[in-house]
Amino acid sequence: MSILVVGSVALDTVKTPFGEGREVLGGSATHFAVAASFWSPVRLVAVVGEDFTDAHRQPLVDRAVNLGGLTVAKGRTFRWSGEYGDDLNSARTLDTQLNVFASFKPVVPEAWRRTPVLFLANIDPELQADVLDQVHGARLVAADTMNYWIDSKPEALWRLIARIHVLLVNDGEARQLTGESNLVRAAAAIRARGPRAVVIKRGEHGVLVFDGDRIFALPAFPLSALKDPTGAGDAFAGGFLGYLASRGDDVSLDLRRAAVAGSVMASYQVEDFSLDRLRRLTQSEILERFAQFGDLTRFEPLG
Amino acid sequence: MSILVVGSVALDTVKTPFGEGREVLGGSATHFAVAASFWSPVRLVAVVGEDFTDAHRQPLVDRAVNLGGLTVAKGRTFRWSGEYGDDLNSARTLDTQLNVFASFKPVVPEAWRRTPVLFLANIDPELQADVLDQVHGARLVAADTMNYWIDSKPEALWRLIARIHVLLVNDGEARQLTGESNLVRAAAAIRARGPRAVVIKRGEHGVLVFDGDRIFALPAFPLSALKDPTGAGDAFAGGFLGYLASRGDDVSLDLRRAAVAGSVMASYQVEDFSLDRLRRLTQSEILERFAQFGDLTRFEPLG
Repeated sequence: MSILVVGSVALDTVKTPFGEGREVLGGSATHFAVAASFWSPVRLVAVVGEDFTDAHRQPLVDRAVNLGGLTVAKGRTFRWSGEYGDDLNSARTLDTQLNVFASFKPVVPEAWRRTPVLFLANIDPELQADVLDQVHGARLVAADTMNYWIDSKPEALWRLIARIHVLLVNDGEARQLTGESNLVRAAAAIRARGPRAVVIKRGEHGVLVFDGDRIFALPAFPLSALKDPTGAGDAFAGGFLGYLASRGDDVSLDLRRAAVAGSVMASYQVEDFSLDRLRRLTQSEILERFAQFGDLTRFEPLG
Repeated sequence: MSILVVGSVALDTVKTPFGEGREVLGGSATHFAVAASFWSPVRLVAVVGEDFTDAHRQPLVDRAVNLGGLTVAKGRTFRWSGEYGDDLNSARTLDTQLNVFASFKPVVPEAWRRTPVLFLANIDPELQADVLDQVHGARLVAADTMNYWIDSKPEALWRLIARIHVLLVNDGEARQLTGESNLVRAAAAIRARGPRAVVIKRGEHGVLVFDGDRIFALPAFPLSALKDPTGAGDAFAGGFLGYLASRGDDVSLDLRRAAVAGSVMASYQVEDFSLDRLRRLTQSEILERFAQFGDLTRFEPLG
């Protein structure tokens, strides 16, 4: 089944202890779309400026991401610049230039309004709700958000959360959103407002999936060399929803395998800058790492 | 098989957002011994002061821990006082009174010198080495340490590490010890100096076991209510080595199941202050949570 993603397409300047990327392709919708494209067809709704070249577009074209919803607006493309310290755990933002993204009003092409799977990447929750109004045919809706929206538009965000099936957030965001420092209680507080499932991303510590009254915990893949964590959360979401969409009408929604698929994509994402690793990724590498996740986590019962 | 533990027995005063314990029984050897006692017979070598009462001794006696190596020295028992913030991740030490622990020179009773499994809890690495000299019959030797010894006696610590089979440390200690921020590389650097396995404890994020060229990652058990994290690392070590000792002459050393056993004990340890939860713990609760760890981590292969 197809997935529609709405979010940002950006030019990132990123510095880590292992190198630097200057004005490289980034943004939540980009990272999501490329990761998801290994599993299911992807449609992208976003905005770029007049400075966005064919070369910038190429990684998305190569992955056959449908760019029928990528608007070119007067002005410059959204730019973000950040730096990571030795532990690669969190970025220090050096500069943000919203540019054309500041007046982004997503319009979903008419033909895409019944896309079955919808991912609302991190944008203004009022815009996320507006997109959800447009894609009235979606059977599975997931959303991400960030501390900025939790601070500035909590009511709009909670209204959106009540309408979605899966919320994907990091641990800090789950705590901030609910005021609960304990993640089990934070997830319960979010699920009480509507979503079937809450996925809490913990970076190098892996992911927790709260689905009904069951919890699934998956460690991150232990890597001996990481280059750039930018986009890991969006690549996770891409693998997660990409896997679910690939199951077609299978309504059992195995969120566990989806979380492994997401973690596979995130583990490759961080091995290089921008989309460099995912651009050379193969299906057999994906299957191989999925199996390695089994070896990483398996143990025999007692007795 | 029997386990011998050498470490501290202390009276702790602990404050967390969920309550307070005043002069309650604590110390690395205590927490280790009580947790391990659910799996295998335990012999304890430590020192206490003249103020250490029968009531203090009772939790160890109730668990049939052999106190034939618990010396009473002139003076007061080791005291530690600390406070945890909202996230319970790290303690702020308010006061440390070494008292009789300052001149602790562990002497292993003659009859215990061929104990097959030895745990060197966090004490001066020169004393750990001295105990290892005494327990010449040990077939499995594991050790813990802390930032203080990594700072002050790195050479003695590395000499000890070269002589043991398993090092158990937390993530910060592994990084500090090796100067490697990446845990995969940190574990490899430690294993290169001798130990078969390195177990990296990550608190609420679980544990990594580096055993030969394979890695096992286990999340911590997600708890909706934690009261006091004091002793979690030692309870983990107790379950870990207790399980291995319980296998008798089985030399396959399933460090994966051992890590689950350790995590089961740690997950109960943090549910209440001091030894309160482990004192009322049952074997069937242990089996139940071991099985729950399976449910928490299991996923189906792709396809």
